[in-house]
Amino acid sequence: MKLLLDPDRLFPTDPATRDIARGLYETVAQLPIISPHGHVAPSLLLDDEPFADPADLFITYDHYVTRLLHAAGVDLSTLGVGRSGAVDPREAWRTFASHWHLYAGTASGYWLTHELSTLFDIEVEPSAETADAVYDQIAARLGDPAYRPRALFERFGIAVLATTDDPMDDLAAHAALAADASFTGRVLPTFRPDGYLDPTAPGFTERIERLAESNGTAPDDFAGYLAALEARRAHFIAHGAVSADHGVLEPYTVDLTDDEASVLFRRAVAGDLDAAGAREFSGNMLLRMAGMSARDGLVMTVHPGVFRNHSSSTYDRLGPDTGHDIPVATTYTENIRPLLEKHGLEPRLHLVLFGIDETIYSREVAPLAGFYPSVFIGAPWWFIDAPDAILRFRAAVTETAGFYRGSGFIDDTRAFLSIPARHDMARRVDSAFLARLVREGRVSLAAAERISVDLVDAIPRKTFKL
Amino acid sequence: MKLLLDPDRLFPTDPATRDIARGLYETVAQLPIISPHGHVAPSLLLDDEPFADPADLFITYDHYVTRLLHAAGVDLSTLGVGRSGAVDPREAWRTFASHWHLYAGTASGYWLTHELSTLFDIEVEPSAETADAVYDQIAARLGDPAYRPRALFERFGIAVLATTDDPMDDLAAHAALAADASFTGRVLPTFRPDGYLDPTAPGFTERIERLAESNGTAPDDFAGYLAALEARRAHFIAHGAVSADHGVLEPYTVDLTDDEASVLFRRAVAGDLDAAGAREFSGNMLLRMAGMSARDGLVMTVHPGVFRNHSSSTYDRLGPDTGHDIPVATTYTENIRPLLEKHGLEPRLHLVLFGIDETIYSREVAPLAGFYPSVFIGAPWWFIDAPDAILRFRAAVTETAGFYRGSGFIDDTRAFLSIPARHDMARRVDSAFLARLVREGRVSLAAAERISVDLVDAIPRKTFKL
Amino acid sequence: MKLLLDPDRLFPTDPATRDIARGLYETVAQLPIISPHGHVAPSLLLDDEPFADPADLFITYDHYVTRLLHAAGVDLSTLGVGRSGAVDPREAWRTFASHWHLYAGTASGYWLTHELSTLFDIEVEPSAETADAVYDQIAARLGDPAYRPRALFERFGIAVLATTDDPMDDLAAHAALAADASFTGRVLPTFRPDGYLDPTAPGFTERIERLAESNGTAPDDFAGYLAALEARRAHFIAHGAVSADHGVLEPYTVDLTDDEASVLFRRAVAGDLDAAGAREFSGNMLLRMAGMSARDGLVMTVHPGVFRNHSSSTYDRLGPDTGHDIPVATTYTENIRPLLEKHGLEPRLHLVLFGIDETIYSREVAPLAGFYPSVFIGAPWWFIDAPDAILRFRAAVTETAGFYRGSGFIDDTRAFLSIPARHDMARRVDSAFLARLVREGRVSLAAAERISVDLVDAIPRKTFKL
Repeated sequence: MKLLLDPDRLFPTDPATRDIARGLYETVAQLPIISPHGHVAPSLLLDDEPFADPADLFITYDHYVTRLLHAAGVDLSTLGVGRSGAVDPREAWRTFASHWHLYAGTASGYWLTHELSTLFDIEVEPSAETADAVYDQIAARLGDPAYRPRALFERFGIAVLATTDDPMDDLAAHAALAADASFTGRVLPTFRPDGYLDPTAPGFTERIERLAESNGTAPDDFAGYLAALEARRAHFIAHGAVSADHGVLEPYTVDLTDDEASVLFRRAVAGDLDAAGAREFSGNMLLRMAGMSARDGLVMTVHPGVFRNHSSSTYDRLGPDTGHDIPVATTYTENIRPLLEKHGLEPRLHLVLFGIDETIYSREVAPLAGFYPSVFIGAPWWFIDAPDAILRFRAAVTETAGFYRGSGFIDDTRAFLSIPARHDMARRVDSAFLARLVREGRVSLAAAERISVDLVDAIPRKTFKL
Repeated sequence: MKLLLDPDRLFPTDPATRDIARGLYETVAQLPIISPHGHVAPSLLLDDEPFADPADLFITYDHYVTRLLHAAGVDLSTLGVGRSGAVDPREAWRTFASHWHLYAGTASGYWLTHELSTLFDIEVEPSAETADAVYDQIAARLGDPAYRPRALFERFGIAVLATTDDPMDDLAAHAALAADASFTGRVLPTFRPDGYLDPTAPGFTERIERLAESNGTAPDDFAGYLAALEARRAHFIAHGAVSADHGVLEPYTVDLTDDEASVLFRRAVAGDLDAAGAREFSGNMLLRMAGMSARDGLVMTVHPGVFRNHSSSTYDRLGPDTGHDIPVATTYTENIRPLLEKHGLEPRLHLVLFGIDETIYSREVAPLAGFYPSVFIGAPWWFIDAPDAILRFRAAVTETAGFYRGSGFIDDTRAFLSIPARHDMARRVDSAFLARLVREGRVSLAAAERISVDLVDAIPRKTFKL
Repeated sequence: MKLLLDPDRLFPTDPATRDIARGLYETVAQLPIISPHGHVAPSLLLDDEPFADPADLFITYDHYVTRLLHAAGVDLSTLGVGRSGAVDPREAWRTFASHWHLYAGTASGYWLTHELSTLFDIEVEPSAETADAVYDQIAARLGDPAYRPRALFERFGIAVLATTDDPMDDLAAHAALAADASFTGRVLPTFRPDGYLDPTAPGFTERIERLAESNGTAPDDFAGYLAALEARRAHFIAHGAVSADHGVLEPYTVDLTDDEASVLFRRAVAGDLDAAGAREFSGNMLLRMAGMSARDGLVMTVHPGVFRNHSSSTYDRLGPDTGHDIPVATTYTENIRPLLEKHGLEPRLHLVLFGIDETIYSREVAPLAGFYPSVFIGAPWWFIDAPDAILRFRAAVTETAGFYRGSGFIDDTRAFLSIPARHDMARRVDSAFLARLVREGRVSLAAAERISVDLVDAIPRKTFKL
């Protein structure tokens, strides 16, 4: 079977609406990519090593891909996932290719098709029969200097790429990249302090001890802890960071006095804080991080509502990010209120509220962003970063909050090669959505053209202070 | 840029389906407007004064409009919102006009376009450049007698308009309107007792004292309180009221004995009732109001699920209804059951269940209305009173409950000038929805034509006993 | 008015997409029906008696139909519902026919139209005027041997039909059917043990006593209880059962030791277990049933989230299944985790997670089925087993989990005559969904053709081990 890459893909079915969408898309198709949040390692660009093999490139590190193979009965360790150890990449590729039909209609299948077609000129669908030929065709390109990370970075037209980093990271890779005159891309670190704010996270005390050491204060000194966090944020800002990201199970916030928080902190460091106390402590820290953002200007992004490592036996065997982080119901209105009561009207705060529970879009996030100048609507994320889900998102938020309260598209990916496919998808879907509004007489074509461009340029630049 | 008012707006994109929708719409486009729930002040029609200026007309009192300006960084006090005091209306208008692009794709933008175009013949989009010319063009009309409230009421083809009123209101304005032979419109009061049922509402005790005084009983006499409420309902009915409206955070109901409720009431009036007790008391009162409705025949409407005055600093500065009432998750099935157990099968009870959490439409409201003769499905409301959201609503409820268990369209607006725009929107969207069902072979064209007319006439008349 | 049965019904409105859908549908329209879960009584096929009359056939036993009449004010006892006693079938039919407009746009109206048209050649819509003629035309056919259950079973092309049965059922009807050489259909029992697992179910202790008696152990012997359940499962398997079905209010599971569970069991049998204890016990039993499924291979299906018998006065008067089972919000991620921690990676377990709260599709069920090999996505069910809802379902789950993690269509019906209408509806809607993906360049036509066939054959066969 031929591998399909329709030039009109994702455009509306009605011909007149499709024509409008195609026109809108053409004005933005080639604009630079702004990626203000994602998980590409900076070392990828610093080292600029060739990719090892097709399995390394497309399978092993992409838990969107490996999870569907696992669901089909494939042992993750045969794909090299997590702590699996070395595998035969051609065998892993054969396994993947023979399960290609599982990806029909999925976001992963859509991105993979884009990547195989546009980057490697693959013209047949992966299958048991074509697996080796496709493997060889990809592998043959990987030695080509044009397929090294920096060359691809330029080919992809990436204007800005943000990584996600541990607060104690020295950011040497970022510094080296910035100092390297041969690389002109803008690669920014992102401050991600979850493990330092949540007493229930494994290794919390050890991390706090290292943080305290960096600051020269006692590990259980709450004022020292706050100062150390602020110092690390300053270090990130000095290396170009524009945002701090927060992954939480629920976006609970609570305002505590320094004394109340100190008591909880000392018990947390001592490993002596119960679940309720830990919730109070981390809820208070989320609020305090908004205060720091209001002062130092780092954009605060919140990614709530994911139950991490749902299968503990898989986690124990292979580690995190192995395909079983599962969403839960989320609510913002009451959870985030203490934070907004304290900081929601402060002009420097930019707070981007993401969600993976679609029900919050029309119910909570759009109404909040339609009032608070600090609140921005996070783009669809994870499982709902996909064509139909993006259309649902646009339909859910636009009537309440318009187009100018959103974050712009966020790829949030580890899969470097998928970045252009993802941004192209978003541009096509936004064109499709706008084209419908034009055809329904709700937005003029001229306004739609302006919005199309703003969605990929002015809006993410404003939200993320780029 | 030209201001767009496409005669085919909101119709489906597919040409054949669009033709069907246009035909359905044409049969209902000019039918009278029935508005059984809304927030227009009766004094507007009694006094029949000219509107002051374009800002007064379109901005200051419309918190759908001002909230998006606030989100864009505009100080609400420069728009005259709430307790702001006087502002320069031309400056407020300029601010609004220069932010016109924020409204693209929103329900507010859609209504404003309709109003500017059909009422004031505005042909250019508001913008910094066109602000003054548009302002002048509107202002020039406001002195014209054809732009006074009563003339517009007639021009709009309003058959029935319900206001929303405090139980202690003497309804003198309604009486004067009814007695005024020069005005033939039907303007009905609506009994809205929230502040008299919820012990946590500020000023509860003072209101109860005034209520008791009207009845000549002691403020903490529960039987007297019930009798006073019934007397006020009778007063409303005597002035033409057909419904009682209830805004609650959660639609919790509970059946208590008179003795149990009396104890809670006395503590409530004494200001000595905790949050749990207050929830029990107001949950019981919601159930008792259904009992009164089953006896006196007032239609009972419930609007749950909004966290009012989310930003307390804004509330403290400017007052309520200033753009930060934010929805929360809602559930009816278990909350409303005690009420339905007690009164759900009584023939005089009409209970209209609204929601602003879209998840309840297919899950709870349509199944309840598909069984209980007393339950009617409230139309989309507030943020989800918008074209795409109405289509989602129709798709969510119709397969379970058909077309004949709904309330008919409810504009629920303070913005008098937006009433025709809103009803026209609903008629267009319902035509679009029905046209799709016709094109998909699910409803015959003849049935769709009958339903179209019933949706704007027989259905609201039956639900609201008009 | 003519009764409409458009040959292109449910296909997309856009002509090019419609053509693709029609082509996909034509490849599956005549394929045999696999019905792995439903509520047809085996005696219907064993006895093969003629249907009594049109009311018996279409109204009395279909609570989807009677509930809308009840909502319109019709007394259920005039329709023969539940314990109503005998009614005049022609009068019941007249009542139904004169309310036909209530069904416009509903799933029931769609199925009834299909049945009246394809089985009885009715060409006019039911109405007060046509009621008698339609009644007579149907009644005249019922004496025809071609309208007996077995003849219809063959005409419908049913390959497999599963019933739903009490664990203590001797399955004599199934055995007799299997032994009857004149009937070649495959009719399978399904093990439905809810009443034996939930201590709050009326009659729990009596059922447990009968179960214990079958096993020769004491009623409060927990080990004996488990052994008895396993023996009854084995009895079902010996009679062809492939699945066990579980209806629960919430899909809560919890792992308890045998000792802990024994204590709760003894108190449950003694009628001395509080609500919290009952929740723990039945949550533990749901987990243990998964363990039994992992051992004996019965597919485990879970149907959560319905508040049964919402109107207790209706239940007291007429019994269960009388139209007032109302959905509640559901969540799986944390509730089902203990079960998946213990058995989710066992190769023999097939766990089909249904839902009637649409929010869980993209948020929980698709992500779970996209990782756990044991988890399959249950088809839309009950109120959301309807064209638009099925389209929403496909859009919600496919981007995350593709097409191959679903259960295939489940009719779940008591209404034998509606089975072909329901499966035809599903095939049309799936064709419409796939056609859109083809037209949007997301799935090739060849892949869509393969998926279409797999959805009605390979996928249900694999999920239900047929």
